Amino acid sequence: MMVSIFLVFIMHLGFASLESGLTRSKNTINILFKNVMVVSIGLLTYTFIGFNMMYPGAEFAGGFFGFSGFGLQIPENGLTSAYNIGYTYWTDFLFQAMFAATAATIVSGAVAERIKLNSFLIFSVFYIGLVYPVTGMWKWGGGFLDTLGFYDFAGSTLVHSVGGWAALMAVIMLGPRIGKYNGSSRAIEGHNIPLAVLGVFLLWFGWFGFNGGSVLSADPGTVSLVLVTTSLAAAAGALSSFFTSYAIFKSYDITMVLNGILAGLVGITAGADLMSVTDAILIGLIAGVLIVLAVIALDKLKLDDPVGAVAVHLIIGIWGTLAVGIFGAKAGWSQFGHQLIGVLAVGLFCITTSFIILIIIKKTIGLRVSEEEEIEGLDIHEHGMNAYPDFRTNEH
Amino acid sequence: MMVSIFLVFIMHLGFASLESGLTRSKNTINILFKNVMVVSIGLLTYTFIGFNMMYPGAEFAGGFFGFSGFGLQIPENGLTSAYNIGYTYWTDFLFQAMFAATAATIVSGAVAERIKLNSFLIFSVFYIGLVYPVTGMWKWGGGFLDTLGFYDFAGSTLVHSVGGWAALMAVIMLGPRIGKYNGSSRAIEGHNIPLAVLGVFLLWFGWFGFNGGSVLSADPGTVSLVLVTTSLAAAAGALSSFFTSYAIFKSYDITMVLNGILAGLVGITAGADLMSVTDAILIGLIAGVLIVLAVIALDKLKLDDPVGAVAVHLIIGIWGTLAVGIFGAKAGWSQFGHQLIGVLAVGLFCITTSFIILIIIKKTIGLRVSEEEEIEGLDIHEHGMNAYPDFRTNEH
Amino acid sequence: MMVSIFLVFIMHLGFASLESGLTRSKNTINILFKNVMVVSIGLLTYTFIGFNMMYPGAEFAGGFFGFSGFGLQIPENGLTSAYNIGYTYWTDFLFQAMFAATAATIVSGAVAERIKLNSFLIFSVFYIGLVYPVTGMWKWGGGFLDTLGFYDFAGSTLVHSVGGWAALMAVIMLGPRIGKYNGSSRAIEGHNIPLAVLGVFLLWFGWFGFNGGSVLSADPGTVSLVLVTTSLAAAAGALSSFFTSYAIFKSYDITMVLNGILAGLVGITAGADLMSVTDAILIGLIAGVLIVLAVIALDKLKLDDPVGAVAVHLIIGIWGTLAVGIFGAKAGWSQFGHQLIGVLAVGLFCITTSFIILIIIKKTIGLRVSEEEEIEGLDIHEHGMNAYPDFRTNEH
Repeated sequence: MMVSIFLVFIMHLGFASLESGLTRSKNTINILFKNVMVVSIGLLTYTFIGFNMMYPGAEFAGGFFGFSGFGLQIPENGLTSAYNIGYTYWTDFLFQAMFAATAATIVSGAVAERIKLNSFLIFSVFYIGLVYPVTGMWKWGGGFLDTLGFYDFAGSTLVHSVGGWAALMAVIMLGPRIGKYNGSSRAIEGHNIPLAVLGVFLLWFGWFGFNGGSVLSADPGTVSLVLVTTSLAAAAGALSSFFTSYAIFKSYDITMVLNGILAGLVGITAGADLMSVTDAILIGLIAGVLIVLAVIALDKLKLDDPVGAVAVHLIIGIWGTLAVGIFGAKAGWSQFGHQLIGVLAVGLFCITTSFIILIIIKKTIGLRVSEEEEIEGLDIHEHGMNAYPDFRTNEH
Repeated sequence: MMVSIFLVFIMHLGFASLESGLTRSKNTINILFKNVMVVSIGLLTYTFIGFNMMYPGAEFAGGFFGFSGFGLQIPENGLTSAYNIGYTYWTDFLFQAMFAATAATIVSGAVAERIKLNSFLIFSVFYIGLVYPVTGMWKWGGGFLDTLGFYDFAGSTLVHSVGGWAALMAVIMLGPRIGKYNGSSRAIEGHNIPLAVLGVFLLWFGWFGFNGGSVLSADPGTVSLVLVTTSLAAAAGALSSFFTSYAIFKSYDITMVLNGILAGLVGITAGADLMSVTDAILIGLIAGVLIVLAVIALDKLKLDDPVGAVAVHLIIGIWGTLAVGIFGAKAGWSQFGHQLIGVLAVGLFCITTSFIILIIIKKTIGLRVSEEEEIEGLDIHEHGMNAYPDFRTNEH
Repeated sequence: MMVSIFLVFIMHLGFASLESGLTRSKNTINILFKNVMVVSIGLLTYTFIGFNMMYPGAEFAGGFFGFSGFGLQIPENGLTSAYNIGYTYWTDFLFQAMFAATAATIVSGAVAERIKLNSFLIFSVFYIGLVYPVTGMWKWGGGFLDTLGFYDFAGSTLVHSVGGWAALMAVIMLGPRIGKYNGSSRAIEGHNIPLAVLGVFLLWFGWFGFNGGSVLSADPGTVSLVLVTTSLAAAAGALSSFFTSYAIFKSYDITMVLNGILAGLVGITAGADLMSVTDAILIGLIAGVLIVLAVIALDKLKLDDPVGAVAVHLIIGIWGTLAVGIFGAKAGWSQFGHQLIGVLAVGLFCITTSFIILIIIKKTIGLRVSEEEEIEGLDIHEHGMNAYPDFRTNEH
């Protein structure tokens, strides 16, 4: 379980690498800066307020909202966690805290290359501190979705879609990068593909902890099954995105295969402990096809998401959540209905709250950098530095 | 044991980083693409067929070939693995599946910068799916080499040489890169040395799982001894390759030291649980000298292996296997003979099968890209992308 | 505990990435080479002599110096470690050996871009082999600082300051890089910021093992508390260095935030098992302010430390050590006094010994490369290679 903490931590490096690799070199420091600060903000806000909103304990929990006070209170029975018997309070807290920052990191990729740094950081404080723990509580803290029978093993909805909905709202409210949709859509290539590949491998590596640790028990049978379903869904996602993107583009597009791996991982996350080997492979194969179509569809809608975060985390997060009603041990119309209600309830809450936070920021300090800053690069303007000062670069 | 799975997984990132770092920037996406797809292919073919060929169970195993049916069958005693008591079926499967793809990844470095992508992927399907499990069964699945007394703790022969023999065959059948041997041999420098260093550190990191996990039991005495012998052999390999290459080239060649570390690791792999501290250091020191000589010798033979995969995995794989008969708890002429038989039997089978697969591919869809594609780079031609579009590059 | 070994190992990759990312591309191979060799040297010297100097066992230990013979002697009770009941001898040895090389790696960043490679390697052999184990024994091996009541949980003084004092001496004796202080101080930017960020994430990741493993028992309550205090101190260090550097420079300086994270980690290391959540956050916040001031102060003193190693490891190492007397379970004037004595004793010994080693090297083979070599780059001169031969670079 502690190993899972380490692995989920390293996912933040994975996101940082993937997002900076898939964007332009003139905005690299800016993206890395956001990802570094989000980890820090996530840990501190979760300590201060988030953990006690998400896991308030039985006496403080309502169906929709609960809170048991600021800071960390060690439970009366000493170190044992009230929620997860068998783990210490600290292990439980830190594992959950490492998750919390993920939601904001997902947003960071979608808004890259044009959002103001301080606006993003302020958004993150409120979204991680106040929104993520509420929807988390609905299921994992014993709230109304848990009572209903909604199932989300490790967070296809509660982590990935929560990040994805905010990413979608932010993409709409920011608008596309300059030059992205002049007439037709123009591909703006990422500046460092090895960095992106490093990011995806680290995310897969971290997902072993993300899903494996979510078993929240040391039962080796379930944990090892989860590792197998997670890996096979990722492998299947790579394969089907490979064939789908080749069929459409007639070239071997590595970014699509990377997205296919992530799609397989997000897709299996809601039901990783419920699926057979065949189920896991099918979920991954479908996720790999869906992700390619989703990326194309979002681009046709002129929603400019530099790293495909909305497609991966929102669209496939929804797919993974619904798949619990279609495949595996809980499949059935009734469960499918519960899953759909969960998707819609979380979606409605996240759209509303992220809109409120973003519109307030937009009307006060503003969301978007100036045109000059965007064209010349955020690194020089906001950071006074260049990520690669020794190398000669192209206009791009 | 599950931690070992994570570590062996990250070796694939290590190989991807090392191989792309040691080749030219115009072929970077191509190499990364191969490494990403090989993981996916390895996991899926091993699920579909490989695991049941390699570990068919007593009633299905012959001396040379065994098979217990397609897909995964959970054993009757529930989740417990038949081969490795104390681990679940899933843990055992996934650990072995992570190994399987390694053999093809080794080939990928040797054939870099000139093989057709789809040809390589088709080769990988058959080599991982049909060849690797057969020789694996000979020893680890209870086949004839196991009966004979052949010893290969974590795969100096069964993993590294299996990959190395195919790499050698592929190098011969492909021929050298354009411009490599115009008269004398020309060094074609790798484009990103930090990436190569990252790769070697990650491989060492992963090797803790590769060797540590191969104890297949939680006995902390043996596992921790294996970690010590593995680390000291790697350190000794670095040291002796440092001195050897300095003596020959009069400069501090970092690629030779990186190869020296890998040589120490491959060299100790066959007997990591049998060696004392002194034995491990001696095996590593010899591996570090041998690797420098092997790289030079292969170059003199005009065998163009961009990353030194044949030298590291085949030559040192043989050294490590034979070293079990020379050093440590099993040393002796009789054991040396068993080791030699194992090396020869596996070599004969791998040479034959890889030749058959490669010649069929060559005669049908072809093995090598066009001259124009090779000169302009595989990234632009096969992938329609550039790994570093923002940077200005030299002709190279 | 074995997982901690893997994590501490990966810290060496973290240092290699951070140091090469924060220096110029013309010296990249040189820095990576040093970091690779230091791991090898550290493991081998610690095997040969260091472990038995640091943990000589009761009958061989004096207050100031102890030694129980060359090489590794397995204790009479078989594999169990004499110092850390519950772990095998091998686990204990390897965990300590992975620590040992850290001290020299710290120096490597401070002396980057101008020290002779062989001079640095010779220095490392003696410093890791003879100096680090002596001060280590003073506390962890049962020497006079342990008797006194000095406390240093995982090495704010015994690892970080030991490296930091030598780094300071080397910086003074080498002098600044050419062009650094022509009149006013000139920022010499690092060539690859993503590499530096990768390094810091990997160091944080490794610190979980560094601090978590230093509990030296499987008590999950203490280990998990240590993981929480470690993470929160790092997060707090990021936050306060962010605000401090913004207040001073009016820009978002990512290198300061990276240093802030490291400062939080070094600061908590001496007392990670003694602190409450609030204590840990306060220690981290102060460390994050101090590090910015320390970097500025050292620069004003014209002490040229390309990666800020002296500030992070020495200044914050002292802060962390003293903080044990100010915060947490042991706080009090008496403890503060013990901590101060520890800081001074170790400082005096390290200053003296590192001066002796460095002056002998300076008077014999010399410490610094030629002016021509420094200007043209160490990679071409010492290694005959370029780290990025495919890319066009600027004069820098």
